[in-house]
Amino acid sequence: MKKVIIIGAGPAGHTAGIYAARANLKPLLYEGWMAGGVAPGGQLTTTGSVENFPGFPDGIGGSELMMMMRAQSINSGVEILTETIESVDLSKRPFIVRTADAEQQAEILIIATGAIAKRMRVPHEDDFWQKGISACAVCDGALPVFRNQPLIVIGGGDTAMEEAMHLSKFGSMVSIVHRRDELRASKAMQQRVLENPKIEVLWNTVLVDVKGDKALTHVILKDVKTGALRDHEAKGLFYAIGHNPNTEFLGGQIKTDGEGYIITQAGSTVTSVAGVFAAGDVQDKKFRQAITSAGSGCMAALEAEKYMIINPL
Amino acid sequence: MKKVIIIGAGPAGHTAGIYAARANLKPLLYEGWMAGGVAPGGQLTTTGSVENFPGFPDGIGGSELMMMMRAQSINSGVEILTETIESVDLSKRPFIVRTADAEQQAEILIIATGAIAKRMRVPHEDDFWQKGISACAVCDGALPVFRNQPLIVIGGGDTAMEEAMHLSKFGSMVSIVHRRDELRASKAMQQRVLENPKIEVLWNTVLVDVKGDKALTHVILKDVKTGALRDHEAKGLFYAIGHNPNTEFLGGQIKTDGEGYIITQAGSTVTSVAGVFAAGDVQDKKFRQAITSAGSGCMAALEAEKYMIINPL
Repeated sequence: MKKVIIIGAGPAGHTAGIYAARANLKPLLYEGWMAGGVAPGGQLTTTGSVENFPGFPDGIGGSELMMMMRAQSINSGVEILTETIESVDLSKRPFIVRTADAEQQAEILIIATGAIAKRMRVPHEDDFWQKGISACAVCDGALPVFRNQPLIVIGGGDTAMEEAMHLSKFGSMVSIVHRRDELRASKAMQQRVLENPKIEVLWNTVLVDVKGDKALTHVILKDVKTGALRDHEAKGLFYAIGHNPNTEFLGGQIKTDGEGYIITQAGSTVTSVAGVFAAGDVQDKKFRQAITSAGSGCMAALEAEKYMIINPL
Repeated sequence: MKKVIIIGAGPAGHTAGIYAARANLKPLLYEGWMAGGVAPGGQLTTTGSVENFPGFPDGIGGSELMMMMRAQSINSGVEILTETIESVDLSKRPFIVRTADAEQQAEILIIATGAIAKRMRVPHEDDFWQKGISACAVCDGALPVFRNQPLIVIGGGDTAMEEAMHLSKFGSMVSIVHRRDELRASKAMQQRVLENPKIEVLWNTVLVDVKGDKALTHVILKDVKTGALRDHEAKGLFYAIGHNPNTEFLGGQIKTDGEGYIITQAGSTVTSVAGVFAAGDVQDKKFRQAITSAGSGCMAALEAEKYMIINPL
């Protein structure tokens, strides 16, 4: 039996691992094998340069940052298995986690399995991913390639409006592509967007493909009422249509919200199951940054350590 | 007038700066001039090696890490002034901040002035600071120098008990030095401590000095009932007697708790004054880590950006 098992290997999982190992809890971390469709390291491995993680004045590659965190986990004493947890049994402590062909017990479980940004999966999307296409305007909007260029945001909720407002500081024009004739966003946020001269809403419109050369140059849009297709110049395409948190393997044993995010106590990583903590994007749809994820991973390890003092098995 | 003014230059202040600058909010950051008694960069500048900030597999010096964050702030576009804010006027937006000889207005204020660990200020304390003496067992307890060595914790509250439990995994014996004959800590935590064979409580005892060679070797203790002095071997001395948050300059214009910590909404950096956000140790007495501070600095910048969209001045 392990004292602490961590599921997930993004900034939250590795930071939890570093802290738990330094507390002599000998954590076992499952980094997964393309779990959720991404490599060990999480969404950052699909990112080019990360310029907003503090401590790296000239930025650092997303995969490189995660390799550094992984090395730090190992140096701290974290045991890492490149296997995917397929199911868990949280009905009592010790908890049980199961891969395809093995199982392990744990006094404490830290879930840091992240979330995956939803994409439209249009035909040529992969050709231009991180070459003009992004799922995080806050992360990538300030990149030089987007300055004074036409940009596209896909979505109709508050996040899409915030991202459009953010991008309007950099691009020449931001076009929100929205399939309906009204937005889901709050009235106040809609008003700011609609009165912003650098933002337009392309109503009743959907993205059907992208094209470019070395990087994105155009999106192909369809008018859902007439079916007409048209090219629209765009150097940036930002998806803001939500994320899928990786919580299916929990089989409903922890309370989640309507979108599948684990519900944690505000300002804490405590979940609905005593002894199970959640950190990172799997429980955060508001901030979703590498640095906030890492912070919550630290919180999970410290809260777990304290929990084990009071509630030894 | 500035859009965003940040007060404080630790991990929270600089991360807020990096995010605010990348959102094109042209932040002005006051790093202070030995404000709170520490150099710009905050408490980390009083720390030797930082091994638990994710991204640095071999650890990094505390001052070096803060120099990297400062450089990143500048590269991102943060304007930095090495001046100390002495007072603020939060009665209306724009807010006013004042140094000894100037003032500046801001639409948004982010307070990240940190907290300073309380010390006993015994005569030879400075000789052995970070050479055996620490104010953070979670940060420093795992260092090789403390392994299988006699350690001292000063304090009687829950934090002192948690730190003693943490240190008992590494030291040969942990002695809690407590001036009274009973602990303030919760009953459950007291019980764990008292039943731990590697922890003893030295009741009715106070620290009066420290001594050593290149590093700490002994503490000098006084029995408060008899007045008798004695040497006690100790390779580590950990203060767990609380922190002083740097909030005096606010003049009571923001809600704080009984210890002076700014009260923020749980899971948020929103304070009692609309448009004023607080991040880092000035609003966190629970986690107090560089990585959690940095995470909350990011949160403050993102919450500030959203606030300004809805509530433009």
